[in-house]
Order: sequence, then structure tokens, then C-alpha cells
Amino acid sequence: MQTLDLSLTDLAQQTRQAARRLAVLPTAKRNDAIAAVASALEAASEDILAANAKDCQQAAADGLPKPIYNRLKLDNTKLQNTIVGVRDVGKLADPVGDIQIKRELDTGLILQRISCPIGVLGIVFEARPDAAIQIASLAIKSGNGAILKPGKEAIESCRAIVDAIHNGLENVGIDREAIQLLTTREQIQQLLALDEYVDLIVPRGSNAFVRYVQDNTRIPVLGHADGICHIYVDEAADIDKAIAIVLDAKLGYPSACNAVETLLVHNPIAPGFLPKIAAELQAKNVELRGDDRACKLVKMNRATEEDWSTEYTDLILSIKIVDSADEAIDRINTYGSGHTDAIVTENAATAETFMSQVDAAGVFHNCSTRFSDGFRYGFGAEVGISTQKMPPRGPVGLEGLVTYKYRLVGNGHVVATYSGKNAKPFSHRDLPVN
Amino acid sequence: MQTLDLSLTDLAQQTRQAARRLAVLPTAKRNDAIAAVASALEAASEDILAANAKDCQQAAADGLPKPIYNRLKLDNTKLQNTIVGVRDVGKLADPVGDIQIKRELDTGLILQRISCPIGVLGIVFEARPDAAIQIASLAIKSGNGAILKPGKEAIESCRAIVDAIHNGLENVGIDREAIQLLTTREQIQQLLALDEYVDLIVPRGSNAFVRYVQDNTRIPVLGHADGICHIYVDEAADIDKAIAIVLDAKLGYPSACNAVETLLVHNPIAPGFLPKIAAELQAKNVELRGDDRACKLVKMNRATEEDWSTEYTDLILSIKIVDSADEAIDRINTYGSGHTDAIVTENAATAETFMSQVDAAGVFHNCSTRFSDGFRYGFGAEVGISTQKMPPRGPVGLEGLVTYKYRLVGNGHVVATYSGKNAKPFSHRDLPVN
Repeated sequence: MQTLDLSLTDLAQQTRQAARRLAVLPTAKRNDAIAAVASALEAASEDILAANAKDCQQAAADGLPKPIYNRLKLDNTKLQNTIVGVRDVGKLADPVGDIQIKRELDTGLILQRISCPIGVLGIVFEARPDAAIQIASLAIKSGNGAILKPGKEAIESCRAIVDAIHNGLENVGIDREAIQLLTTREQIQQLLALDEYVDLIVPRGSNAFVRYVQDNTRIPVLGHADGICHIYVDEAADIDKAIAIVLDAKLGYPSACNAVETLLVHNPIAPGFLPKIAAELQAKNVELRGDDRACKLVKMNRATEEDWSTEYTDLILSIKIVDSADEAIDRINTYGSGHTDAIVTENAATAETFMSQVDAAGVFHNCSTRFSDGFRYGFGAEVGISTQKMPPRGPVGLEGLVTYKYRLVGNGHVVATYSGKNAKPFSHRDLPVN
Repeated sequence: MQTLDLSLTDLAQQTRQAARRLAVLPTAKRNDAIAAVASALEAASEDILAANAKDCQQAAADGLPKPIYNRLKLDNTKLQNTIVGVRDVGKLADPVGDIQIKRELDTGLILQRISCPIGVLGIVFEARPDAAIQIASLAIKSGNGAILKPGKEAIESCRAIVDAIHNGLENVGIDREAIQLLTTREQIQQLLALDEYVDLIVPRGSNAFVRYVQDNTRIPVLGHADGICHIYVDEAADIDKAIAIVLDAKLGYPSACNAVETLLVHNPIAPGFLPKIAAELQAKNVELRGDDRACKLVKMNRATEEDWSTEYTDLILSIKIVDSADEAIDRINTYGSGHTDAIVTENAATAETFMSQVDAAGVFHNCSTRFSDGFRYGFGAEVGISTQKMPPRGPVGLEGLVTYKYRLVGNGHVVATYSGKNAKPFSHRDLPVN
């Protein structure tokens, strides 16, 4: 691997150059590259699986926890499914070249705002070899270079994967340097310092890791630190809907960031609702932690202050009884993480207040928080979920990997014409986008 | 002023609460608030001018440089024009509540992405009292709270202005805390640390100051550090157009960030073009600093390496002769600041290559770099110009002061329905946006 012979700065510079050439390729050429990468991965399947077997052997020897081991382990089915996913990325609409604004400023002076690749992505992810494949295909699709740093347990697998990707790229005449692999943990810190060459960092992994990245780089970060999702069950809730939604949001996939962590119950319905939902949850081994009033209605552990701001990612649910929708909104805006929060109510006015005033990327009414997901939203691919306030916010599709530039074409136009006493007015006429 | 009695954290919390109430007001109500603020400013004109006279007296005693003094000084005409500007902001399209996506995920499960205010803006600006008025009106229009920190020379003027704004807001029943004033320099650092309460920092002022802000906060920053704009005059340029464009871009307003700082001239036309443009520029007292080849064609100072990455904001222009459009592109991508760069050429293919490959917020063909401006682009108002890579990029209108949230409305929908063996497919049907 040449990556070992180069300083990270040189490597990033190479990626930047390669990304510039990738950025100007037409849609068809980038889709060809994706197809070539898919074919190269197919051709290298045996090598990739052999490399993965080595990683897995080492992981077993190191006593890697079972869930992490399972994510590391590639079998042929998982690999072939991932390659199908690469071909699917080829079929997505091109996020590059989208004309967002087309406006005549004056006769012969035409402004366009057009989406374009960001440049170089730095992606630091967990020990999941299939993630390297997904990410590389999304980067190529969006015309970006990518520097990949996988979890150390997946290094051999990712070497084999990136070798195959390089072969695929070279088969269609694209610089292999567009996709690079980092192999040591020390390189993460160096990567975060390369704000001159890297335009966006996408960290995947634990909350603590994402926060570490956010605190240690000037490069923009696309990621979410916490998913502390709430469901508020209002006095006007349909109780059957409320039960179905809470069960779905807690039990479907407790370690997902869009799983519910805190249930807020409106006081008037608590005596009827809480025992019912508690029985259902406890039957599924969910540990409940309640505030004083909740504990009086149902036998459960008492929640501490820390519980209200904890993402359990486990079969645990905190429960608080509130006196009003306003109190629910206040609590969510105080303790929530701005990911996704839901209200269950048949009262449209209450729902509207909740959805306007809750400050989160997703505000849901009468449905499960677990719909908060790029695929479920219909984005085709999910680059990540952002809990930052500024766009892109929430589940981010391919559009999160592009930016835009303004192109202005004139014919000798100068600003002096439009200034001073005899200033010509601008026409500012929006033109149809073809 | 109550601001003096409160800790900055308490003040920011108040602003956050007030901003939440402002955010959910309908368009008409926010426009009423803007009208009320304009009227209150009119009513307080005498007080504002008297306060400004005090600031100016102090500034004169302190020997404030003339250009800064001129920006500080308010006369009645300037004040009334600024108030007219406030009423104009009222007439702009509402950036809040714009439906960007409306999609049926399944029967009765409707996703919408809707623009909404960001929350609380922290705005640190120079000693320009009129800027306080403009910024407050843009914040109210976009449903955001704002914490204003003006240059210390403008404190008395800004106190009188913010008092009037508070009166205007209270006249229509809006919390005065939505707009707050900071009065000491120490508060800047405290403000930058309040990432829990402040959602966006807009720094205005010197490049060094903007960079200081970027380096000292976790809050997103909307601003540009440098405006190192290039014009490349290609061998296929129309020389008359090239001369007109370069003169406009250098002479119109040399201290603007969209003024040209470096001229790149294609070698084949340099002997004909350079003496002509140099004579015109030198006649207007522009100091020229050239590379070796330029110095051989025209008598001028020799440029140092530092010149190529300097924003002069003055009547100085660096000049380099290049051998190809590719060399010009490389230099711009190396030394430019990603603000605005232009090519002058009659060759459409060369122009296209330049515009695709130059990595800047504005890429211009046959027109002056000085068109890079929110008003000239037709945005109605300009919040700032961003040279960051991620959106918002380039001149930013009111859309830079809003974000969006996803609203999902169902009727008891759960994710389990769409998972597993008998998964129901999503419809993902885009609906017309009303």
C-alpha cells in the first residue's frame, strides 16, 4: 500500500487533485466508475473474504465482543448484497449539476446556482468492512474524493476492498488516489488537522467518538452525537396508537439512534395508560425508570437526573408524568438532543403547537420515531443523520455530499453600469431551469 | 439597561425563550413587528442622533481614524434611509415556512421538510450603528432572536437604537428579550462559548477578527475570512472587455471583499495587453506588483510570495503571467480564498473548464468580480458572504438565517409494518407543494 510511504499531507493533496478531476466528469462517467468498482469487488470477492477471515481470526483471539465481531464478519451473501447496493447507488439521481437558481440579472448577464461536489471527504468509521464499500460508492457518485479510516479490527478487509476499488477505478481511467485508506489510529488526529485539504468529516461510531471529532477539528463535521428521542402521549391520545407507537419505537431496534429513550405521559391519562404500556414493555424485558408520580402508578425503578439526558441504546425507558403539552415541549427542548421527538394526540391544535415549538430535526405526530431514517424518507441512500441546527439536518442523503457554486456569465458587464446616479436597474428575472 | 444586571448565560437563555415564541408567529405578525420597530426608530430619531453625537465626540477625542469615524457617524438622512431599509425587509418574502419536500411515505403518512428559524444569532459587528438596525430587522423577519455586540465606539448609539427596537417590539406584544445588546469586549469570548444557547455566529469586520471567531467557538460561523479574487485574462479574451472588467473590479470599491487582488495574464497576449491595462491602472494610482515576466513588460514593483495570498483592500494589484488556463486554475485553487474568480475569454470551452475546475463560491465569465453580492444577485438582503465550502456559500440572503425540520404525520404508523418478511413497501410519492 502506497499510503504507508506518504505523509498524510501528501496523500490528502493527491486525493484533492484526483477529486478535482473526478468532480468534472459527466454523470455517465461517474456511473461507469461505480459499475466498474462493483465488478472489481465481485472479481476480488475471494481475496476480500480471505482478508476478512484474517481480521476475524485476530478479533476472536483478542476477544472482541460478539456484536462488534458480527459487524466485522463478512460472508459471501453479505458481501454480494453490499455490491448490489453499490450498483443501486449508480441508479440514484445525480446530486451534481442540479440548477437551483437560474436568474437573469440584466440582458446577457445570467446567474446560475449549481450543485457541485464538496471536494475531499474524511470518513472515520467503525470496524465494518461493508461500510467502506458503501461510503466509497457514495463518494464516487457525488464526485468527491474520500479518505477512509476504518476501525483497526477491519484493516485487512478494508485493504482488500480498497485494492479492488482502485482496480475498478483504473479500469475506467479514473485516478486511484480518489479513494484512500488510512490504517493507523494516529492518522485520525492528523486527518482532523488537514483543513486545507479535507472539506468534510463524517464520523461514524459512538457518541463519545463523534463528540471528540467535533471538538478536535476546524473541518465541518456531519454527524450526530446523541439520539435522545422522546414520545409525548397527550391527554387526547388514542391509547391503542400510543401503545403501538411506543412499543415500535423502543423494541424494534433499541440500539438505533431513532429509538425512544424517554416517554412523557400527560397526567390526566397516566392512571389509565401507564399501567397498560408498562405491562407490555415489562413483558418484553424493558427496564422502566420513572419519576415520582410514575413510580406511584407502576412499580419501577426511580429515574435519576442523569436518566433524562441518557441515550440508553438498550432495553431501558425513562418515564415522566407532565402536567401539560407545554411542559412536555419544555422538557424535550431542555433534555432532548434535537434528533426526533413525537407526540401522540388526536388534538390537531396541540399537535401543531408541539411540532412548531419542539426544536428537533424530526417532529412527528402519531407515528414512531423510528421513521427518522434516510431510506424511509425516500432518499435512496443515507450518508448520516445530523442533529446540528444548520442544514443539512436530520437524515442526510446524497445531497449532504454536495455544495454549490454561483456561475455568472456576462459579455463584458461591469458593476459601474448599475451604480451611481444613472444606475441601470437589475432585471432579476428568474428563468426556467431546463 | 437590564443587560448589565444579568449573567450572559441568563441573558442568552432569555433570548432563546423569546426566540422560541417569535419563531412560531405567523408571517403577518413578524411583519407587523418590523413595521412597529421602524416606527419606534422614527419616533426615537432625536435620541438616537443625540446618542450618536456623544459617540462621535468621544471618537474624535480618541482620534479614531477618519474612515471608521465616517462609518460611526449617523446623520438624519442616513438614519431615515436605514429605517426605510427596515420597512423594505418587511416586504421581502418570508423565509420561514417554505415547504421544501412534501412526500407521501405510505397512505396517511406524510413527510414535509419545512424551513424554520435557526434560534438565536450572535452578531459581532463593527462600529456602525446602522448595522444594528439592519441586523435586528433581518433577525425578526426570519423569526430569530439576536444578541448584538457592536464595536465599542458605537455603544451609546446602539443603546438608543436597541431601546427603540424594544419599544417597537413591545408595542406589538413581542418580548423585548428577542433582541439583546452586549456592551463590553469581554462578552465576546463569553458569547462564543454559549453553544448551548446560540446557534449561529455572524462576525463582521476584519479578516483577522473573523478568523479569531472561527478558531474560538464550536458554534457555526457564517462569514468569510478573506476575499482574494482573481481575474484571468485568456489568450482568447476580448481585450476591451478585459480592460473594462479589470478596471471595474479594482477601482469601483477597492476595500470590498469582491474587488480583484490578482490579475493572471495568458502569456501569448501579455505583450499586447499588459502595457495597456497597466497604463490605465497606473493612471488611477494603482500600485502594480508583478512576477518576473510581468516586470519585463511593464515597469512595476516585484511581487513577493506573500503578495499572491494577500487581500490588499487597497489600490494595489498583483500581476502574474501564466502559460495556460490550467496554470491559472491551479494558481487560483492554491492562492485564492474561494470567494470569486473570473475568466475573460471568448473561448467557450476554456470558460467551461475554468468555471468547473475553479473551486470558489463564485466563478465568473466575462464580467466583473464585483457582481458577487447579495443585492446584485437579487436576494433583497445580504446577511453576509461565506467562503466556506458547505452551504450556505457565497452571498447569503435571508435563507442563511433559517434551517429546516422534518415533520412527519401519521395515524398510528409504526416501522414494524415496513420491516421483515412481509414488509409493506413505501410509496415515496412526491406531492404537490401548495
